[in-house]
Amino acid sequence: MTRAGRPRAAFVVTGSELVRGERTDRNGPFLAREALRLGLEPARIVVVGDRPEELEEALRDGLRADLCVVSGGLGPTHDDRTIELLARATGRELVLDEALEREIGEVSRAIAERLHRPYADFQPGVRKQATLPAGATSLGLAGTAPGVVLEVDGVVVALPGPPRELQRLWARALEAEPLRRLLERARPPGRRVLRFYGASESAVALAFDEAGGEGEGVDATVCARDFEVHVDLVVDEGGEGRAQALAAALRGRLAPHLFAEDERPVEELVLALCRARGLSLATAESCTGGLVAARLTSVPGSSDVFRGAIVSYADEVKERELGVPAEILARHGAVSAETAQAMTRGARERLGVDVAVSVTGVAGPAGGTPDKPVGLVYLHAAGPDGELAADFNLPADRETIRRRATVSALHLVRRLLAQDRHERV
Amino acid sequence: MTRAGRPRAAFVVTGSELVRGERTDRNGPFLAREALRLGLEPARIVVVGDRPEELEEALRDGLRADLCVVSGGLGPTHDDRTIELLARATGRELVLDEALEREIGEVSRAIAERLHRPYADFQPGVRKQATLPAGATSLGLAGTAPGVVLEVDGVVVALPGPPRELQRLWARALEAEPLRRLLERARPPGRRVLRFYGASESAVALAFDEAGGEGEGVDATVCARDFEVHVDLVVDEGGEGRAQALAAALRGRLAPHLFAEDERPVEELVLALCRARGLSLATAESCTGGLVAARLTSVPGSSDVFRGAIVSYADEVKERELGVPAEILARHGAVSAETAQAMTRGARERLGVDVAVSVTGVAGPAGGTPDKPVGLVYLHAAGPDGELAADFNLPADRETIRRRATVSALHLVRRLLAQDRHERV
Repeated sequence: MTRAGRPRAAFVVTGSELVRGERTDRNGPFLAREALRLGLEPARIVVVGDRPEELEEALRDGLRADLCVVSGGLGPTHDDRTIELLARATGRELVLDEALEREIGEVSRAIAERLHRPYADFQPGVRKQATLPAGATSLGLAGTAPGVVLEVDGVVVALPGPPRELQRLWARALEAEPLRRLLERARPPGRRVLRFYGASESAVALAFDEAGGEGEGVDATVCARDFEVHVDLVVDEGGEGRAQALAAALRGRLAPHLFAEDERPVEELVLALCRARGLSLATAESCTGGLVAARLTSVPGSSDVFRGAIVSYADEVKERELGVPAEILARHGAVSAETAQAMTRGARERLGVDVAVSVTGVAGPAGGTPDKPVGLVYLHAAGPDGELAADFNLPADRETIRRRATVSALHLVRRLLAQDRHERV
Repeated sequence: MTRAGRPRAAFVVTGSELVRGERTDRNGPFLAREALRLGLEPARIVVVGDRPEELEEALRDGLRADLCVVSGGLGPTHDDRTIELLARATGRELVLDEALEREIGEVSRAIAERLHRPYADFQPGVRKQATLPAGATSLGLAGTAPGVVLEVDGVVVALPGPPRELQRLWARALEAEPLRRLLERARPPGRRVLRFYGASESAVALAFDEAGGEGEGVDATVCARDFEVHVDLVVDEGGEGRAQALAAALRGRLAPHLFAEDERPVEELVLALCRARGLSLATAESCTGGLVAARLTSVPGSSDVFRGAIVSYADEVKERELGVPAEILARHGAVSAETAQAMTRGARERLGVDVAVSVTGVAGPAGGTPDKPVGLVYLHAAGPDGELAADFNLPADRETIRRRATVSALHLVRRLLAQDRHERV
């Protein structure tokens, strides 16, 4: 760990649905990434409910950091306690900010009108939301809740819980004087990413260790996700040489598996490869049920490359819509290399595209046989210059199998198009 | 908050990729849901990296709870520090467990062989992983890492970080004597859920408040997600009457919007409605790009109802594969009620299904016009007894628009099939 000396940042996320696990917190991870990017040290993310003693303790812990960002608990109701407890934890009095009261009052009047309710119902909430710890300043409103910045020993920022509102007011917090002064002491690190496909996590970790591993200004995380392994290097002053050497060693050892040195997901790479050659793309999917198409169309602007998909869940649909011969289905079964190939051919013909990829497999939990167990997946990709097939057979739960099959399909197209540019395999 | 008096549970999640926001923690929410189900009070989830001082402080805080579950940091390398710091925080010595050393040794020998590496390379890691705080007992292995249970003032459970391994060893922890004794003091609460579609979060919150709101043994969360609003009631001893009254009031006030009183997602309800009447189902998707089909096929056993989908991203595919007349596309555009209706008709005919639903819209960020802005979505569903159309026009980011369109499509089919059973709307 070489990033000591950076200002520490702590995040306190409040919400009873979050501490009960009914909803997954997105604000902590967002704020942590922001802190890292800005050159602070993300030290801890604490999720607590709205019980006053739990929240106050979390705030007191958080206040020991150089920056403490609190998410949630800024609403008008009695169980929105962030401001009151922040005042207590910092030993500040609560003071009504009259300009803020007018600002929130205006928004609340409009809401009252829309709901056909008397404004008087809203007045106590408005007054509560306009009452801040002495010395705190408003960052502006999200809905009726103000974001708040307060300088004590460190800097405290309180933001509303809805992620979009939090992100909007976070941008304003970065402009606030106390935070700007803090960020002058921060040292944004360099980043380097290497993304591998088809290498095991332990093979990547071994190569990394043998190349010298962490240390001397380089912090690393190695994460495996669905057949991809992501290596992220956080590079401090003086660590650039080490980071370069590590990256070069990994490139050398794992060249056939390296697919990216940036954070673009594989679906973006596939679309870019197609776009560069003016190729159109389609998918034919069985066990993934449309997930490959959904990943591709999640990318803005995908419509210039991606034409469509046929999700052939039933065998009749494979025959009718993709022209998979009944004989292939009868002889080899719907989950087979032959069916995958025929699906790809059908998608190219029927949808009139240059490149197609197909997936067929047993996602389970039912439907497995000794010959065709749950987790068996066949993939096939074809383009103007050739074809590539792949398969895997790894037992897992339905969601994991579908996700792995989706990632595998995207990488199969990527490999097909990338090899065309370089050499025939 | 009425659940005081229950044993408190705290969760310490360690992993530098988690505290940096590079990966989202799933273990904290899983453990919190487990604690709630078992009748403990989930008090806080703390995410920290592997810096010893941060982790030790988080452990010391966690140890003040009746149950502290630690996730991660049990591996063989130097930055896996959970056991060492747990020993320090509990004031226990570290002791080598020889039986455990043999057990981990066996697994490691097999790994060494597979990797063609000398076992000697693994020996220090094996010894480290077999060294536990005095008094701790192993829960068995996940990979080479043991789960560990230790009784101090409260109970501490340390589990490996990979979610699947954590969940497997958590099941074993529940059998361990110290945890069983603790759970005897727990009081599992009752749960009640009400799920609404098409009502605003504030309308639901207002109805809830007017029905008496929280208190008297009932804790509530009201969460809006993509046009659905979920009300979850956690019901303590003596709160059952209040919970029944609240549920009855919400049912009465918001009857047209109530779609479920259990946790089944809408895709499961749609499949169940089709299955009950022996109807087959397909989708025709443009802006959702296969997400509706992917949601439906995420449900095990969906293949007895769901036949397939046509993702018609390009207009040619709408014409060729779904038979949408060129004239409709020319006159009304691809994003129109008329095109949605024609897509549904095409899906029913081409895929030979009883029920189909279609989606077409502008997901953005580009492609919007004054007439057809980003966020405009048309949906159409048709079945043996009739048709239903819907549309919405709400600016948002691409991902949100696609998710809302997906949920809307599923609810449109649900409403079509549910109304058929009751009355014509």
